[in-house]
Amino acid sequence: MSTAGSTAPRSVESLVVALVVQKFGGSSVADADGIKRVAKRIAATKRAGHEVVVVVSAMGDTTDELIDLAEQVSPMPPARELDMLLTSGERISMAVLAMAISNLGLEARSFTGSQAGVITDSSHGRARIIDVTPGRIRSALDEGAIAIVAGFQGVSQDTKDITTLGRGGSDTTAVALAAALKADVCEIYTDVDGVFTADPRIVPTARKINRIATEEMLEMAANGAKILMLRCVEYARNYDLPIHVRSSFSPHEGTWVTDFPIPAALSSHSPEEPVEQPIISGVAHDRSEAKITVVGVPDNPGTAAAIFKAVAEAEINIDMIVQNVAAGASGRTDISFTLPKAEGATAIAALDKAQAAIGFERVEYDDQIGKVSLIGVGMRSHPGVSATFFDALGSKAINMEMISTSEIRISVVTRLDQLDDAVRAIHTAFGLDTEAEAVVYGGTGR
Amino acid sequence: MSTAGSTAPRSVESLVVALVVQKFGGSSVADADGIKRVAKRIAATKRAGHEVVVVVSAMGDTTDELIDLAEQVSPMPPARELDMLLTSGERISMAVLAMAISNLGLEARSFTGSQAGVITDSSHGRARIIDVTPGRIRSALDEGAIAIVAGFQGVSQDTKDITTLGRGGSDTTAVALAAALKADVCEIYTDVDGVFTADPRIVPTARKINRIATEEMLEMAANGAKILMLRCVEYARNYDLPIHVRSSFSPHEGTWVTDFPIPAALSSHSPEEPVEQPIISGVAHDRSEAKITVVGVPDNPGTAAAIFKAVAEAEINIDMIVQNVAAGASGRTDISFTLPKAEGATAIAALDKAQAAIGFERVEYDDQIGKVSLIGVGMRSHPGVSATFFDALGSKAINMEMISTSEIRISVVTRLDQLDDAVRAIHTAFGLDTEAEAVVYGGTGR
Repeated sequence: MSTAGSTAPRSVESLVVALVVQKFGGSSVADADGIKRVAKRIAATKRAGHEVVVVVSAMGDTTDELIDLAEQVSPMPPARELDMLLTSGERISMAVLAMAISNLGLEARSFTGSQAGVITDSSHGRARIIDVTPGRIRSALDEGAIAIVAGFQGVSQDTKDITTLGRGGSDTTAVALAAALKADVCEIYTDVDGVFTADPRIVPTARKINRIATEEMLEMAANGAKILMLRCVEYARNYDLPIHVRSSFSPHEGTWVTDFPIPAALSSHSPEEPVEQPIISGVAHDRSEAKITVVGVPDNPGTAAAIFKAVAEAEINIDMIVQNVAAGASGRTDISFTLPKAEGATAIAALDKAQAAIGFERVEYDDQIGKVSLIGVGMRSHPGVSATFFDALGSKAINMEMISTSEIRISVVTRLDQLDDAVRAIHTAFGLDTEAEAVVYGGTGR
Repeated sequence: MSTAGSTAPRSVESLVVALVVQKFGGSSVADADGIKRVAKRIAATKRAGHEVVVVVSAMGDTTDELIDLAEQVSPMPPARELDMLLTSGERISMAVLAMAISNLGLEARSFTGSQAGVITDSSHGRARIIDVTPGRIRSALDEGAIAIVAGFQGVSQDTKDITTLGRGGSDTTAVALAAALKADVCEIYTDVDGVFTADPRIVPTARKINRIATEEMLEMAANGAKILMLRCVEYARNYDLPIHVRSSFSPHEGTWVTDFPIPAALSSHSPEEPVEQPIISGVAHDRSEAKITVVGVPDNPGTAAAIFKAVAEAEINIDMIVQNVAAGASGRTDISFTLPKAEGATAIAALDKAQAAIGFERVEYDDQIGKVSLIGVGMRSHPGVSATFFDALGSKAINMEMISTSEIRISVVTRLDQLDDAVRAIHTAFGLDTEAEAVVYGGTGR
């Protein structure tokens, strides 16, 4: 009865059982329909034979609503109580998600950060994970259940108080838990298809990256790519844990962030694909920084150090630094640095306080800057990269105000209104454009 | 400089420091303004020199909203997950209340049921408290802080899962915690001024009771007075803990529920007031019951037992029972009993199943009944009470369908539409009416 040329469907049995940690952000679980959709996705992974641990953020705008409520009763709520309040958001989403999975006929149990063994220091609002002791999660998996864990939260080692991990905290929870459980992969679900060669909102011809090395992803994250937080990539790199960034709206594979073979049970890619690393991985950009210039600094040994000491004591995170050559016989110079806009006021106050002791003339603040970065491990062995980079900007008459480089990255500061042109010019110059238009970026929850 | 007849204001210093547990229901903390008002109340108690532990329910409609959310994803959510979900409500209210108190310049720390040491069994949705180990609460008090505890929740001894205590759970938390801390009083804040001689919505001339014996309060609670849950009064009675039921909207003292002297540091009443117990404390009523009549029961030994066994196995809580005398030579009788309306369908199903084996004719269900109860420890020594009671109903032509009595209580079942008249007639007959109109009852949260 066979017909020449027909192809019989193959029955593919998943022989290798993997332990999969899946993280869903707030926009994926914004309402009951979102939760039901995510529940189906989780159930499909479980029914494929895998062990599944899910990390979930608070639903949609819950966190903002809770912060509003706090502000109605106190202009400066104590950090301990703010953490207690905000962690209720994940408690809601995880319990409702567990219910939705149960409704599909599978057993799911939800766990708070504390119950999941996420041990942190006592820095409320920006706690760091010290240890993960996932005994209850392991037991739930051993009993055949899906474990649902509240992202973004933990319990402090010293005081046993509830803590939150700060921005990107749910990703960090997922990666830390995956490392502690020796998971085969940590899947970060988002509303885009993966990591792109540039932000598709700026470069519609940007291409999805199938696989990226961890050090490149670190540079992308550190230079403005919002899809993964720096901390989370660092954690995964330290524990040799593959991350798979993918869309919660589509079944397609996204971007694998790993330096090791892609797990065969979880991917249709060849484990080693691509065998040959591309020279350039992508173009990142950042609109969140400002530039401070300290004008008329006495050109003496130790003066620059005094300036950066004053800024460091105010716990400001400095990014790029440029010290101009002292002009003429004045014996004075200018020092510029970039920093997060959010820390601008604090930095200016710290410098004003130190002005008399250091003896500089004035401080200038400029928040109309942007930063564009080109990232690729191939730069190490391809010396022509920086020339192509500078040519691309020069041909578009884009002025470079500051430059910084690493072995695998070139970053420059431009005027903010020239940033998009700069991203597009560099993307094109390095041949990263594709024909197809990409899915547009959106928020990715916390 | 003194003037004859003037009275100098006395400076009253509170010399005796008391440990006060205060419980605020959902309607008292329905929004930010309510929370700020409650915070002031708590701060005033602390500034009077007392140690303060606060138990708080979820804000306003939070619990109903969370149940709605659960129903959107699952028609039968697992009880463990429903508890995890619902307990987020108290986590929100307690954290925001702690913030509001901090904003008044006092230190407040919030604790989940688990952190406060509320240990329960594993019956999700209706857990019973097994033990209270309030070490962290005691430490917070010792360090001068106000402790805010989530009502209605605990942690199961066996599985370490989050549990809820069911209806009236926050009152139970407050009383159990007060007992474990050996508090001087457990103050239950509500939206009425205290316990009244009857529901002021039915009897506008009802009088606030200054003090009531625990066994009277138990009878009131068991017979429809909603101001305190039966469980909570039982707990306080077992631990000799005074309860003070009072309004969160007024500074006046409410009703003391205790068999011991009223703590002098916390009351303007004479400790023993009133020295002479009144004969009657009050009139309670209940609209929540229905009556089932099993018609044509064979009048043999063991048949009534078989009927009640069938009902008991369905975990139905029976209240009053009447067995009619067998009429004539039929050898058959009727048995009537009352039960909560909510359990009506289950009871009928259980009886239908047992019909063939027991051999009765049919089951009649009547949910148009009401129960009125007169309560007072003085009944023991005043034999004329029942005559006055029956006269009061007879003179208003109110038919008594069932009667039950204890040493300190008389209850009768009437038609539902005659219940209010019955309550008023009895209240008047025992001289409980006052001139002043009382504050009207409302919901009291969970």
